[in-house]
Amino acid sequence: MSNAEAVPLEGVASAPCCPPLTERPFSAEEAERAAPMFKALGDPVRLRLFSLVASHAGGEACVCDISDVGVSQPTVSHHLKKLKEAGLLTSERRGTWVYYRVEPAVLASMGHLLTPAAP
Amino acid sequence: MSNAEAVPLEGVASAPCCPPLTERPFSAEEAERAAPMFKALGDPVRLRLFSLVASHAGGEACVCDISDVGVSQPTVSHHLKKLKEAGLLTSERRGTWVYYRVEPAVLASMGHLLTPAAP
Repeated sequence: MSNAEAVPLEGVASAPCCPPLTERPFSAEEAERAAPMFKALGDPVRLRLFSLVASHAGGEACVCDISDVGVSQPTVSHHLKKLKEAGLLTSERRGTWVYYRVEPAVLASMGHLLTPAAP
Repeated sequence: MSNAEAVPLEGVASAPCCPPLTERPFSAEEAERAAPMFKALGDPVRLRLFSLVASHAGGEACVCDISDVGVSQPTVSHHLKKLKEAGLLTSERRGTWVYYRVEPAVLASMGHLLTPAAP
């Protein structure tokens, strides 16, 4: 529960999903597992929310920190829920507020998928 | 038009879109530009097609190489068109067939967006 330690992200040997998209054709199962992560970021409001949480001091953001993405609070909550369902964010209630943080393994896993082909 | 030379993908200083999602909150404009790329990969069939092209020998694939993704040829064509519209693939007709290739700058740009935060 420490905020001070970042989960190591280099060398995602145990990436939970799939090899780089450039390595070999994805199987149907791999595609079914990976597509929802991309879909979750395929909406401009969700992308802004995700970026807001991912770039926030301490790597987490309270719903109370989220105000300027141009949509109502219920819509913010809806999109945060979608990001959680896709495994991109985790949340924790502390007192009055729910705090969201990026799931670092998933971010690394998605980056791993997008590794360009070796020259 | 050479197939032997890969476009350099390291150090995407001139990434066409946006900073890493972890760097600062995205603006509305940045989110509008980046979301369609993620959305294009947010469908399992499109992800398989993209992976098939991205991993094919020579970095490109002919429609004639695509047969085993479990959907009809018109559906394949529809999804390839969506991937082109999102800027992820380019295409070129040579003789009878259309050849698809991954747009390397876009792949690198998406990977750049997913750069984890510095520890």
